[in-house]
Amino acid sequence: MTIRKIAITDVALERSPGQDGDVFAGNAVDQRHGGPITIGYGRYAPNQDLVETIAVDDVMVVLQGRLSVSTEAETVTAGPSEIVYMPKGESVTIHSHEEGAITAFVTYPHWQEAEAEH
Amino acid sequence: MTIRKIAITDVALERSPGQDGDVFAGNAVDQRHGGPITIGYGRYAPNQDLVETIAVDDVMVVLQGRLSVSTEAETVTAGPSEIVYMPKGESVTIHSHEEGAITAFVTYPHWQEAEAEH
Repeated sequence: MTIRKIAITDVALERSPGQDGDVFAGNAVDQRHGGPITIGYGRYAPNQDLVETIAVDDVMVVLQGRLSVSTEAETVTAGPSEIVYMPKGESVTIHSHEEGAITAFVTYPHWQEAEAEH
Repeated sequence: MTIRKIAITDVALERSPGQDGDVFAGNAVDQRHGGPITIGYGRYAPNQDLVETIAVDDVMVVLQGRLSVSTEAETVTAGPSEIVYMPKGESVTIHSHEEGAITAFVTYPHWQEAEAEH
């Protein structure tokens, strides 16, 4: 595999698995490409909540809008150019604020393979 | 390790190892923290060139400005909210355009450990 430029228009945004909120994600690079990591984009409508246990190490870069990520212990809030790192095994609620949010994400290993093992 | 919010003000930007250009990088999360990935920010002054062989899988999210990444085979150019994925083993030149650039990056495994093995 060679270098690759990725834009949000390269991904097919689909509703997050097992969720009924307006939260969408799409992979640009993943297990289909032979490398160790998944790269994609996410889109959150305003005031959505995504509840999940993180099956992989997950890095979320906020490109637009604002998100809060809560665990039992704490809540962090990130806006444009800020990052939330969610280590494997954390149970989180990701909440989008009134302006919604666009994110880029990187996971190690591939999140779709990890979820399929459940 | 629990969830962590990261901003560019959290990192100490230092000149890239072995480089004399005005290209700076700082890790927020790396081998010190016990996880598998490094997360950081980069800052490129205008019209700089960074030449290197990528020792790890490296994902660069452009937050501000514009960068071109060239291999022998091709050149890709990325602006705000776009990503360049550089798989391990690629030899690249990263060129900043006249407005410079700010990036977020994620590497698997840790780039500092991989470079230390050279």
